[in-house]
Amino acid sequence: MSEYKAIGTPTPVLDGRDKITGQVQYATDIKIPGMLHGRFVTSPYAHAIITSINAEAALALPGVVRVLTAADMPDIPPRARNRLFLARGRVIFAGQPVALVLAETPAAAQDGAEQVWVEYEPQPAVITIAEALAPGAPLVWPGGKPGASGEAGAHGADVGDEDEEESEVSGPNVANGFVMKRGDIAAGFAEADVIVERTFTTSMVHQSYLEPMTHVAVPDAWGNGMTVYASTQAPFHAREQVSDVLGVPETAVRIIPTLPGGAFGGKFFLYESLVALAARAVNRPVTLSLTRSEEMLATNPAPAAEMHVKLGAKRDGTFTALQGDIQVDTGCFPGYHGVAAWLLGSYYQTPHLESRFAEIFTHKVSPAAYRAPGAPQATFALESVVDEMAQQLGMDPIELRLKNASKPGDPLADGKPWPVMGMTEVLQAAQSHPLYQNRAEAQAKGRGVGIAIGGWPGGTEPTAAQAQLHRDGTLHVHIGSVDLTGTPAGFTLIAAETFGVSPDKVRIVYGDTSNMPFAGATGGSKITYMVGPSIIKACEDARQQVLTIAAEEMEADAADMEIVDGRVQVRGVPDKALDLGALAKKTMDFGAKYAPVVGNGRHANNEAAPGFCAQIAEVEVDRDTGEVTVHRLVAIQDVGQVINPLTLEGQMQGGVMQGLGWALYEGMAFDEYGSPLTGSWVDYTVPHFIHAVPDFEMVFVEIPAPHGPFGAKGVGEPPIIATAAAVANAIAAASNGRVTQLPMTAPRVLAALRN
Amino acid sequence: MSEYKAIGTPTPVLDGRDKITGQVQYATDIKIPGMLHGRFVTSPYAHAIITSINAEAALALPGVVRVLTAADMPDIPPRARNRLFLARGRVIFAGQPVALVLAETPAAAQDGAEQVWVEYEPQPAVITIAEALAPGAPLVWPGGKPGASGEAGAHGADVGDEDEEESEVSGPNVANGFVMKRGDIAAGFAEADVIVERTFTTSMVHQSYLEPMTHVAVPDAWGNGMTVYASTQAPFHAREQVSDVLGVPETAVRIIPTLPGGAFGGKFFLYESLVALAARAVNRPVTLSLTRSEEMLATNPAPAAEMHVKLGAKRDGTFTALQGDIQVDTGCFPGYHGVAAWLLGSYYQTPHLESRFAEIFTHKVSPAAYRAPGAPQATFALESVVDEMAQQLGMDPIELRLKNASKPGDPLADGKPWPVMGMTEVLQAAQSHPLYQNRAEAQAKGRGVGIAIGGWPGGTEPTAAQAQLHRDGTLHVHIGSVDLTGTPAGFTLIAAETFGVSPDKVRIVYGDTSNMPFAGATGGSKITYMVGPSIIKACEDARQQVLTIAAEEMEADAADMEIVDGRVQVRGVPDKALDLGALAKKTMDFGAKYAPVVGNGRHANNEAAPGFCAQIAEVEVDRDTGEVTVHRLVAIQDVGQVINPLTLEGQMQGGVMQGLGWALYEGMAFDEYGSPLTGSWVDYTVPHFIHAVPDFEMVFVEIPAPHGPFGAKGVGEPPIIATAAAVANAIAAASNGRVTQLPMTAPRVLAALRN
Repeated sequence: MSEYKAIGTPTPVLDGRDKITGQVQYATDIKIPGMLHGRFVTSPYAHAIITSINAEAALALPGVVRVLTAADMPDIPPRARNRLFLARGRVIFAGQPVALVLAETPAAAQDGAEQVWVEYEPQPAVITIAEALAPGAPLVWPGGKPGASGEAGAHGADVGDEDEEESEVSGPNVANGFVMKRGDIAAGFAEADVIVERTFTTSMVHQSYLEPMTHVAVPDAWGNGMTVYASTQAPFHAREQVSDVLGVPETAVRIIPTLPGGAFGGKFFLYESLVALAARAVNRPVTLSLTRSEEMLATNPAPAAEMHVKLGAKRDGTFTALQGDIQVDTGCFPGYHGVAAWLLGSYYQTPHLESRFAEIFTHKVSPAAYRAPGAPQATFALESVVDEMAQQLGMDPIELRLKNASKPGDPLADGKPWPVMGMTEVLQAAQSHPLYQNRAEAQAKGRGVGIAIGGWPGGTEPTAAQAQLHRDGTLHVHIGSVDLTGTPAGFTLIAAETFGVSPDKVRIVYGDTSNMPFAGATGGSKITYMVGPSIIKACEDARQQVLTIAAEEMEADAADMEIVDGRVQVRGVPDKALDLGALAKKTMDFGAKYAPVVGNGRHANNEAAPGFCAQIAEVEVDRDTGEVTVHRLVAIQDVGQVINPLTLEGQMQGGVMQGLGWALYEGMAFDEYGSPLTGSWVDYTVPHFIHAVPDFEMVFVEIPAPHGPFGAKGVGEPPIIATAAAVANAIAAASNGRVTQLPMTAPRVLAALRN
Repeated sequence: MSEYKAIGTPTPVLDGRDKITGQVQYATDIKIPGMLHGRFVTSPYAHAIITSINAEAALALPGVVRVLTAADMPDIPPRARNRLFLARGRVIFAGQPVALVLAETPAAAQDGAEQVWVEYEPQPAVITIAEALAPGAPLVWPGGKPGASGEAGAHGADVGDEDEEESEVSGPNVANGFVMKRGDIAAGFAEADVIVERTFTTSMVHQSYLEPMTHVAVPDAWGNGMTVYASTQAPFHAREQVSDVLGVPETAVRIIPTLPGGAFGGKFFLYESLVALAARAVNRPVTLSLTRSEEMLATNPAPAAEMHVKLGAKRDGTFTALQGDIQVDTGCFPGYHGVAAWLLGSYYQTPHLESRFAEIFTHKVSPAAYRAPGAPQATFALESVVDEMAQQLGMDPIELRLKNASKPGDPLADGKPWPVMGMTEVLQAAQSHPLYQNRAEAQAKGRGVGIAIGGWPGGTEPTAAQAQLHRDGTLHVHIGSVDLTGTPAGFTLIAAETFGVSPDKVRIVYGDTSNMPFAGATGGSKITYMVGPSIIKACEDARQQVLTIAAEEMEADAADMEIVDGRVQVRGVPDKALDLGALAKKTMDFGAKYAPVVGNGRHANNEAAPGFCAQIAEVEVDRDTGEVTVHRLVAIQDVGQVINPLTLEGQMQGGVMQGLGWALYEGMAFDEYGSPLTGSWVDYTVPHFIHAVPDFEMVFVEIPAPHGPFGAKGVGEPPIIATAAAVANAIAAASNGRVTQLPMTAPRVLAALRN
């Protein structure tokens, strides 16, 4: 039985009913008097010189107010994608915004966008990594590469950016790169009895949030301040970007975060600054809500990758050497996905390691974070190779993994030690799971069972929170993190447990960047991990204040007081108790004697809590068509401590579902000129609930995180990581076909079967 | 020279430009999709039985959605005026809301209200105090008097409600009453050499805020929660009222306070609950924005009073006895203005005291707080009598006052000791003022110079505040008090002084009742006095956090650090400094090492800080018409400590200006049936800037309040108190006419001259 009263209680998402019945005010529901609607004019070319822009016909249309171009934008270096604003003289990806039509209605803006005439001189473009690296290839950045730290750190992915051997990876269209080495890689392979070597490719994948990017910018009447209603995961970071571009102090910008209708890493910041600049240019409120087509053309999906992995092992399964070479197609801006190479070199222990990473510029849309950015790609490659190694060695694939799995304190790829983590325990739980134990039964039915594991370092970012007791006995907990995944439900449990009330007496409240306590971006599997401790501290502080007031009221010692079931009492003497609401009344009334109960919590912590998730897939492969059916999928994840099993399970299901998208369905395609072929959800397949959802099972393993709230660790990213690898390994188990390309579409599976 | 860097700096009202150019979003600017507009159907009778309400014709009009009556309201006891909702079977004042028409547009609502047919059976009504107290008078509350504590405590006016001798004052239409006694009043008058005895009357006066009462209620989609955009001085108190009426927990109601366009005590809460009930009844957003006519008919002005004062003194000026009898015409609900009698018995020390108070029900609109509620009335009476006493004794009127003025520690009317206060110092400053010193010059010109003093106990109510440091070095101070008078400008000075930055690096921010730190109602001259200390504590806390972080960064001792000009440095070593913004960046970034700087301040304090304001008026009286011209008006006030001289002066000017309204212009009139004769600002005269503003001079006296921020005390209420008395005394000095009725209109002055 749990020692906890609230922690671990299954608690539905607090705003679930609001969401499914349309009560939530999303950014697109924000209507400001005088607001103009924006619509992009986008480039049809992947690379071209803009020779002229003629907006006359557009401006002649009723309702069209203004057509903005680069001439209306500040001419500052485009050091990151969100500073590209509108194309200045040259376009570098098909879909790049060239002009922004502002009109009184969305329809007028659309009509206007169709009447802006842009003349281009098409230029040779590099669309693939091979083209980009070819000698004499056209340069994406002939005048100098953009460089700035990106938002990868938000995911705990800010590793490997700096390396003493960076110079090993460079070239004209190379955005960045590094090599991580340990031992003598050639000697390591020389020691190996078996070597497996494969090349893998993954596709560009879109985060496919339901709500398109939407922002509303409202300029201050004077000064240069700006209010932005933004569908963002990172209001404080978006504020930093907008203020910098506007050239005003950061607090002159107020970001009012609206609930994102999905984000998955894609909504840190992108068009907030452009919308703010547009609003300033016309001195009116401006909204920009992308169409699905614009989403597919001009946002920031996950990058495609090409990966070469070579693994050597002794006959007994001991890994001797691991070599990885990951090239990420980063489009026109770096995406900072180096964590891929870092993870590849960190999951398993091997004396000899070489993990090489580079991001290659192409004339395509640039990527950003998507749930565990870089990890699904690297894990697909590595875990496929490990699986094949087990096959070749004739070993149980989990036994092989357990033999080589990293343990806390073991070196990471960068030489630093692994923090506390549960890779081994997760693998052991997978090993004992019936689906794995009884995989022969599936095999007998012509199906295959595959296993893979993936991990994520987790991120850190400071937070603060306040907890205020109100006269109805409700504790309001004010936090600054945007909700993506239902974490507020868990926060009510954390606060209830700490303060001593039932969870329904806790309310999680928000403000905007002007008044809410700071919290880092919602991303990197760190909201529960980082906001939770601030909530605990705020509630402990509030609790102590309550005990002190009650002690004075009851002429007792605060140390002898306790809060039980919404009442504060002398320990063990329930009939000498004061209702929390009545106590609050003594702090919130004319002439009241006591200061209001407001607890303050502040937290920072540099040690992330890595999370591992193993997945077991049972699949069936149609040998005639190559079609893959996933019948069962078990995800086993170290969550540190279960706070709210409902949202935990939901988050894991969502991650696995998206992992199935990576595995089987999703891939943004481009033709040889760089024109997107997948311009909508008609062409681009996201998994449908009706067809694609297997029999799910989510299993929790609890290896407490030393700094996590009640031991909890981030859980958002791990469940997406291993899915594609698990499915690929299950396909191999079912068919002996080894598919090395994502998504594993029927033709590709068929091709693998025929090899 | 001041020891302070920021405190005392003249600082314009922060949102002055927004206000005068229409940028502020007042409650009437709030537009919610689907919102209905309300318009009252009001009673033409002061007392009547409602026999029928026919809404058919109204409902047939286009746009009229619903006509609500008492049948749609909860049938709960009307224990306070804000629970009267819509008349249930009987009306008890002319102007009482009988029905509420809800329509798609304000015009449709107005049309609808004109088509609701209400049938009444008029009943005999009591319109004056005399009628109400006459034997056999019709009862305002035949079924039992409403009783509940009101909001008078908000003004520090919650004195005298309970008294062992309450039974002395009672009767069928008596709402409440008490007597405060000291010594033997008959013996006291027997000891007197001179006795002055007068009867005074004052009129019902409206707060005359520019913005009519306006609220918008938005029901939650489910549950019974409600969001109310409210033009209120007291969001947390309004929340308590609304939730209680709705029967939901207090935190199920969210009050979003909009900036009141004037309030002056009249906007604690009145129609918030009714609008919320209406919104619930139709399950749509509802707004009610009163017309000026409805404002004059159906809000809560200051009450009229009838006062009898008898003062005895020795030949040397020593007061021997003071007897006061104040009867307040409280309309249909008690207004809790007992502080009038308490002040009357507290300003001066006399061994024998009897101060009698009663509120009398009449069939008129009920009063509520208006800036120093009860004080202008009582002070007009007492200070007129004291002035006449000086005349009769042939003494300098300030000398007489100084001889008898209460000092800290002296007994109040209720026997408790006066806290620290500066009545004597204020009188001394008045005495030495040139206008007073040279009053013979005015006299020589046929003018008169009059002096009066008034004081206010001041209120207390707990507060909290948070101070958060942002990456641009700006400190955001989050408070929960509505701004009425520009106090945020002073708060920037308090925060800047405490934290160690310039005031322009401080921003005062707000939220709503869900997320803002509690602060009591804005009323009672207590916002700077009570919120200020929380801001100081929050900024001290934040400062300590900054010093600790900087010390760790610079490897120094936090005790050796200081914040100077927006940088934190080792004490006295400016070249070893860290910019506050850079420091904040170390607390607000991916992987940052330190917790965010968020200081928490909480404050409660039971000892109020009384404030006194003396006023010297120079007037000219037209002996043919009775017209009074106020040429000069000097107000001398103990403010404790000047925080922001600009807002201080503005607040004093506003108070004096309203005092001139009481003195010369304002009075709501009723005919013998209780029908209001002053239904708009055409009939009811508020002072006009062009005609009524004398040559003003505001003088600050600083007697520090022991618990005030930097010694400051509340300044909002004192400046309205003595104006009418000072003008009356100046009229007497100019003309020997003693006017005993407010307002002192030309006919009344003429009558006094002819007596």
